[in-house]
Amino acid sequence: MKNIAFLLVFVVGMTQTTWAQKEKWVSLFDGKTLKGWKQLNGQAKYTVENGEIVGTTVANTPNSFLCTEQDYGDFIFEVDLKVDDAMNSGIQFRSLSKPDYQNGRVHGYQMEVDPTERAWSGGIYDEARRDWLYIPNINPEGKKAFKIGQWNHYRIEAIGNVLRTWINGIPVSHLIDDMTAKGFISLQVHAIYGSMKEGMKIRWKNIRIQTENLKPSPTDNCPVINLTLNTLSEQEKAQGVKLLFNGKDFTGWRAVHGTKMPEKHWAVVDGTINVSPSDGSETGNDIVTTEQYGAFELTFDFKLTEGANSGVKYFVNEEFDSGGKSGIGLEFQVLDDEKHPDAKMGAVGNRTLASLYDLIPSYKLDKRFQRKIGDWNQGRVVVYPNNMVQHWLNGFKVVEYERKSNIYNALVARSKYEKYKGFGAADKGNILLQDHGNNVSFKNIKIKELK
Amino acid sequence: MKNIAFLLVFVVGMTQTTWAQKEKWVSLFDGKTLKGWKQLNGQAKYTVENGEIVGTTVANTPNSFLCTEQDYGDFIFEVDLKVDDAMNSGIQFRSLSKPDYQNGRVHGYQMEVDPTERAWSGGIYDEARRDWLYIPNINPEGKKAFKIGQWNHYRIEAIGNVLRTWINGIPVSHLIDDMTAKGFISLQVHAIYGSMKEGMKIRWKNIRIQTENLKPSPTDNCPVINLTLNTLSEQEKAQGVKLLFNGKDFTGWRAVHGTKMPEKHWAVVDGTINVSPSDGSETGNDIVTTEQYGAFELTFDFKLTEGANSGVKYFVNEEFDSGGKSGIGLEFQVLDDEKHPDAKMGAVGNRTLASLYDLIPSYKLDKRFQRKIGDWNQGRVVVYPNNMVQHWLNGFKVVEYERKSNIYNALVARSKYEKYKGFGAADKGNILLQDHGNNVSFKNIKIKELK
Repeated sequence: MKNIAFLLVFVVGMTQTTWAQKEKWVSLFDGKTLKGWKQLNGQAKYTVENGEIVGTTVANTPNSFLCTEQDYGDFIFEVDLKVDDAMNSGIQFRSLSKPDYQNGRVHGYQMEVDPTERAWSGGIYDEARRDWLYIPNINPEGKKAFKIGQWNHYRIEAIGNVLRTWINGIPVSHLIDDMTAKGFISLQVHAIYGSMKEGMKIRWKNIRIQTENLKPSPTDNCPVINLTLNTLSEQEKAQGVKLLFNGKDFTGWRAVHGTKMPEKHWAVVDGTINVSPSDGSETGNDIVTTEQYGAFELTFDFKLTEGANSGVKYFVNEEFDSGGKSGIGLEFQVLDDEKHPDAKMGAVGNRTLASLYDLIPSYKLDKRFQRKIGDWNQGRVVVYPNNMVQHWLNGFKVVEYERKSNIYNALVARSKYEKYKGFGAADKGNILLQDHGNNVSFKNIKIKELK
Repeated sequence: MKNIAFLLVFVVGMTQTTWAQKEKWVSLFDGKTLKGWKQLNGQAKYTVENGEIVGTTVANTPNSFLCTEQDYGDFIFEVDLKVDDAMNSGIQFRSLSKPDYQNGRVHGYQMEVDPTERAWSGGIYDEARRDWLYIPNINPEGKKAFKIGQWNHYRIEAIGNVLRTWINGIPVSHLIDDMTAKGFISLQVHAIYGSMKEGMKIRWKNIRIQTENLKPSPTDNCPVINLTLNTLSEQEKAQGVKLLFNGKDFTGWRAVHGTKMPEKHWAVVDGTINVSPSDGSETGNDIVTTEQYGAFELTFDFKLTEGANSGVKYFVNEEFDSGGKSGIGLEFQVLDDEKHPDAKMGAVGNRTLASLYDLIPSYKLDKRFQRKIGDWNQGRVVVYPNNMVQHWLNGFKVVEYERKSNIYNALVARSKYEKYKGFGAADKGNILLQDHGNNVSFKNIKIKELK
């Protein structure tokens, strides 16, 4: 009997081992008590029921966090959670609470729980610090991962500066950021806001973590947001993303209608491309990529100064005679809408920030996602092989159109580009940064060609 | 033994009976010979192999038809067919061959076999007569029914003037036409054209027909094309289609900006609405529906005279001051593009036939589907509850846009409508027929509201 018992235990033990025999999961929840956790900030109720941690909302209290007593640097973390409808929540990781930072307010990375139509679950939010870092709108497949009203399986891999999330096995976020290397993990019960009510519940179970022998998941198609400076992460390289700006000099760039960089106005300062101010007019001093591009995803950060005007153009055709002014191509407008008069020109605001210049006005972002002058914005232009084009600003799609369609032709025919036959319609063109005589800066300029 | 044999035969006989015990199928193919069929027109090869009729293309011969020796009036017909790639074919029904009609050329209704990207299988074509009658573009689900390279199950119900087709159980066409009540059925081997070659094959089997106790399939969502005059078929009524023009008088219509019909210019002649010619200018004499419509499918037939100009408008808002001219709304342009100067005005042809007038030019149809002046055209305007709008002409979508979007606003802002705040943007509006001083005619004006 003893031999059989031993054999049984051995066999059962072997079956408990996963294929990756080296994975060493540690449970963070004993199923009965909150041992290993401590509550910070708000006074929401945390209890244990039926092998689950249950968080219940309480009125008149700020965000509550049930935090690991231990800090974690590099780890792989998993939890199953089930949340009442319309009840926002999140999983904090590498998070902090310091007396000298807003009186101990919990801050740091959060993997979002969003059981609403907005569907941002799995995105990465910087709680009480930089606001949204990875909005899942750029990953439509990821937005379908979370199932409202059901148990959802959450996974976070934080290894070095690579922060990745999955919901139910579907990748949602892939963020490269180096602000915080270590901190605690928390289960949030949000303060009551919007349509939330007192007594709403969220449940967590099967909470476990790996901290040794970490095997990162392989690279995949999840779009990358890289907040570090002018670098390509492993996943970006695997996806074919290239730097258009190397962070040091103007390799890959030259003056529009020229062969070398302009003498004046353009400089690299602290890893950013800087356009120095002149008289605010189109100088004809724009710079273009030496290469031409057809279908691509172009991303770039830009920073305005007060009243500034600039632009990022694509499908630039140097054969168009611009009379010594700016190179001619489709333009993602860069502008201080509030202070520059061009914002009110054109028609229905089609010269405002992120608009397809003088053609299609961008949809305006909620104030929360508009950046102050002097802060960095994230721009994105996607041109698909089927001629669909999108402009994105700070995580939101703000323009969409079909190049060369009947609608496109009608817009161009009544714009300032009317005289350029074939405007924006070639198979390829240069990318251009505009010198409109104002001080603006660019960094993290990257391109991925699409087939 | 005999009793057992009888019992066996009885049981087997019972199992052969379908649920609908009254369905009386008659086989048209004995599996071994072409008895009951005769070949007309071309010299393609028809043989019997392995229980299938096989048609093989032959060079330098016109369309070939293997025709039933018997004629059929009302029937339900089924066949399984498998066709080589890129080889066009079709099933003739209620078809004819007369010495005094193109020397015996087979003509009449055909259920299309189209194993190409165009995917018009199941549409109804009028062979050697009126050309295409039901193009499946209006039925996207139907276009997915045919499986290239596989056996496909074809079904035709021809009962009275209701002609319906299914492929693999999916409804493709629903045509109401009264031109021919009876004729033969044929299996076509097409003349070689396009990418077809000699020696290509099509196979047919399980060919059967019902002619008694016919039970038509129930009404469904398949779009109806009704070629009879100002009538609603059973399926149109079931789908909520209503007549805007009763074929007799102007019930439901009045002068724009008025309360009664205009005194002059509008008459009902032989079941058609006729606009009599004056001086070719906007008369301000348009007529509008007494009701207003928000989301709908509007269909109408129209006929031009040489050099004529008219229009069908929607979301007409009588509060806009048109200075005594045409009522103001979104317009499906009605125009003789060749002879009327307005075709060259506006921008990039956005005043041509079926265009969204002065906003978006329609895509131009292949000459085959353009009607001669004096022949009837089929117009269709669909406004979805989500604000997507489509213009269709003679079976093809030629304009598509999103009402009230940023692109729409940009187009309107640089059009003749710029001064009308909220142009085309209300929740509802009148439908309008324009008197632009030229002779045009309308019939079969129908509307179905969409939720």
